[in-house]
Amino acid sequence: VPHRFYAPGIGLSAPVALPDEEAEHLIRVLRLQAGDEVEAFDGAGRMYQALVERAARRTVSLRALKVIDAAPEPGVRLRLVVAALKGDKTDDVVRDAAMLGVAAIQPVVTARSEIGLATLARSHRLQRWQRIAVSSVKQCGRAVVPAVAPALSLADYLAGPDARVERLMLVEPSASHASQPVQSLPRPAAADLMVGPEGGWTDDEARSAAAAGARLVTLGGRTLRADAAPLVGLTAVLTVWGEL
Amino acid sequence: VPHRFYAPGIGLSAPVALPDEEAEHLIRVLRLQAGDEVEAFDGAGRMYQALVERAARRTVSLRALKVIDAAPEPGVRLRLVVAALKGDKTDDVVRDAAMLGVAAIQPVVTARSEIGLATLARSHRLQRWQRIAVSSVKQCGRAVVPAVAPALSLADYLAGPDARVERLMLVEPSASHASQPVQSLPRPAAADLMVGPEGGWTDDEARSAAAAGARLVTLGGRTLRADAAPLVGLTAVLTVWGEL
Repeated sequence: VPHRFYAPGIGLSAPVALPDEEAEHLIRVLRLQAGDEVEAFDGAGRMYQALVERAARRTVSLRALKVIDAAPEPGVRLRLVVAALKGDKTDDVVRDAAMLGVAAIQPVVTARSEIGLATLARSHRLQRWQRIAVSSVKQCGRAVVPAVAPALSLADYLAGPDARVERLMLVEPSASHASQPVQSLPRPAAADLMVGPEGGWTDDEARSAAAAGARLVTLGGRTLRADAAPLVGLTAVLTVWGEL
Repeated sequence: VPHRFYAPGIGLSAPVALPDEEAEHLIRVLRLQAGDEVEAFDGAGRMYQALVERAARRTVSLRALKVIDAAPEPGVRLRLVVAALKGDKTDDVVRDAAMLGVAAIQPVVTARSEIGLATLARSHRLQRWQRIAVSSVKQCGRAVVPAVAPALSLADYLAGPDARVERLMLVEPSASHASQPVQSLPRPAAADLMVGPEGGWTDDEARSAAAAGARLVTLGGRTLRADAAPLVGLTAVLTVWGEL
């Protein structure tokens, strides 16, 4: 397996300097040198065969040699809107979502979240999640790095201007609101998949989402753990749309 | 959420004693007493509302009051045949598979496995996996406990007498063997889903499986981590069959 680097801005016209963390990895961990061959992606969809042009302590640069194939992106632009979980459980969610091909990740804080917006902001989790997304993308061969957005309250997310995005909220079957099985979902151009915290969405939240135009979607009768539900939900919708 | 116990043999005719570990949990952790109401399942598909009949140090027994609904089981009898992973990564695989509704789990040792049959046998992993399956089933509301079988070599598994089970091997697209996308799978009565280790199946293994009647199945172009592939693969086939 070739070594892969995230090199924002890389292209065939000129060499590009690596971000600090990637440079560090190339020099100190892998001990690569000028002239070594690597793969590099720009995070926006292009993967290149590349040469290490300079590998000095302060500057590491890569020269793109030619475009190569990256893992294909899903034809549906899919965003995961996910309730932040306590501890580091959201780390795995971000890693898995990046592996499955999401275009973006929007953490939200919900009625049953065990962590608040202020704590999330203080804890530098956003930076950590973005690093995890980069490293997952490297492993799975994608050339797109999903952006992880700063957390929002569910209400603020629902109030956002997403008129042309199909909003899907993963719910457990309930008497209090109508829902549809995942298999019946039409294939949209872009979708947000909303996945709740441990204990799920409140009935109020489900109703607000429906009022904001979301479809409530079920995955069958077995209860899913909150940390596994995003991976299961993303896999299910991608399978239904022929995009896995 | 009611407390749920695994009570093999429980039925409406007579009280049943709990296995040691469940009894321990009822008495020492939850501190329940005679007369308390719980839920109990027999591991084979029946869930009951039950009463704690006795809660003494040496004997804890439950009396079933009436049958209640458990989470529905998939209509396809699905077995996960999974390469044992190093460390405790297989623990999560067992937990997730039990949550998604598999009927059984068959660990196998493959060419690229980083753990051998002897090590697996010595390490008491089988007992641990079985405990994990029980605890996952409790959480997700199933009344069926998937049996975890002792590990086999892939060759011994393939030589086994499974004439009426559809064998599916999850592979990455490759020039060396023909494969089909998961969306095209017909719905069988019973299926084994085979998922490989880190680094995947060797070409030889894929050919042997095909020769033994397995269909080689792909999940699209993005590389899945070995510890996530079982959950993704199980979700995908269950979705395709309308059984999630």
